[in-house]
Amino acid sequence: MAEPAKSVTACIVVIGNEILSGRTKDANIQYLATELGKLGVQVRECRVIPDVEATVVATINEVRAKFDYVFTTGGIGPTHDDITADCIAKAFGVGISEHPEAVARMTRHYGDVALFTPARRRMARVPHGGVLVDNPVSVAPGFQMENVFTFAGIPAVAQGMFQAMKHRLVGGDPVLSRTVRTNLPEGIIAEPLGALQGRYADLDIGSYPAFRNGKPSVSLVLRGTDDARLGVAAAELIDTIRTMNGEAEEFVQ
Amino acid sequence: MAEPAKSVTACIVVIGNEILSGRTKDANIQYLATELGKLGVQVRECRVIPDVEATVVATINEVRAKFDYVFTTGGIGPTHDDITADCIAKAFGVGISEHPEAVARMTRHYGDVALFTPARRRMARVPHGGVLVDNPVSVAPGFQMENVFTFAGIPAVAQGMFQAMKHRLVGGDPVLSRTVRTNLPEGIIAEPLGALQGRYADLDIGSYPAFRNGKPSVSLVLRGTDDARLGVAAAELIDTIRTMNGEAEEFVQ
Repeated sequence: MAEPAKSVTACIVVIGNEILSGRTKDANIQYLATELGKLGVQVRECRVIPDVEATVVATINEVRAKFDYVFTTGGIGPTHDDITADCIAKAFGVGISEHPEAVARMTRHYGDVALFTPARRRMARVPHGGVLVDNPVSVAPGFQMENVFTFAGIPAVAQGMFQAMKHRLVGGDPVLSRTVRTNLPEGIIAEPLGALQGRYADLDIGSYPAFRNGKPSVSLVLRGTDDARLGVAAAELIDTIRTMNGEAEEFVQ
Repeated sequence: MAEPAKSVTACIVVIGNEILSGRTKDANIQYLATELGKLGVQVRECRVIPDVEATVVATINEVRAKFDYVFTTGGIGPTHDDITADCIAKAFGVGISEHPEAVARMTRHYGDVALFTPARRRMARVPHGGVLVDNPVSVAPGFQMENVFTFAGIPAVAQGMFQAMKHRLVGGDPVLSRTVRTNLPEGIIAEPLGALQGRYADLDIGSYPAFRNGKPSVSLVLRGTDDARLGVAAAELIDTIRTMNGEAEEFVQ
């Protein structure tokens, strides 16, 4: 696996029993991974963990030391099973209390004090030292503790929070990609593909088989930071496949 | 979080750069989590990791010691980026070579020896001591090493492999669930819901907000191993919500 010139890494931590039980399909990993990639932040690991304090605290402390950025989703709502904010505070060894700005925003939002219930006030609690992350969808904010960003789990809210804070991230060289699709099966293309990877050690070449319109199809994905070099390698790959009497075309998303 | 009488745990490890780049959305976690749940095997963690040997080896060794079962998906195809089988061998400290039964099956499948390319022969390599997992879709098998099951990443193949080996699993008490849907927002239902969780410490009660037909809706999910007790708690929850002038109905999937 080639490393780009300057790589900035991230880990996504999805917190929630509902993903682990199969009840809900995660929708945040793909969104965040794609958006982070555009900013030159490479997601290197994702974890899905349960609403269990010891697990959340240990996971956060492990991954925040290991990656440049950590993004958590889930567990910052008003109910008893929303324990993420408390876990983050514990992971950083700090206290947690109502953040004045969060309280002010939510007070404005709910208007009637009777609607700003004690349960909802829990959502204004932020670990000490935390910087708010705006929530353009439903007001109750996320927060940033050093390199750890905590978002809500509902996809629309997680996405809104990401867009609201992404200017705070400092990315590395963006990873670019070219995709070549072929009708040749992996077992036939594997050998020249491996040779191509050998000649282009600075690129990361992956092979992803799928069925398209009922027919087997393989996407060969070249990733790297140098667009010109990607273009040369992709052209070489297309030539190789055509020499083998295969169909090959560059697929542009 | 209440523990069932006898709990059997699992970890799912998704191996593949294409999930981490956002190119592909994982489809195996939800399937495996749901199917394992039916067998009384509770998925307690999932990890998505890249095609990097050191990461795969370290992850496998960590999670196989921590959970009763481990399921990996991805990285057992014929191309250079398919390194999972070698990584599993390294994690277990054993060698890897062609498995005679795997070679026999693939020889029958490909018929012509010219089609059974060296790249495809790589798919017959199994860590020493591994037991084959049948592949009813595309023949090249997965394998079992002690408590670690290695499947292909293509969802149809992963699913076929799981169905082919699930009789080998010994589950605990199956986790049952009841879902109550309400129009009351989480911030209003949170307090009585927390009180209910306090009274039913043996159940795991979760709250999942969503939008349904453009309206906010909350699914309150009660999970546990005792169906009668779940029924009592769900009835109590429905009563509570109706007393608060909310709509509540049990949702049956």
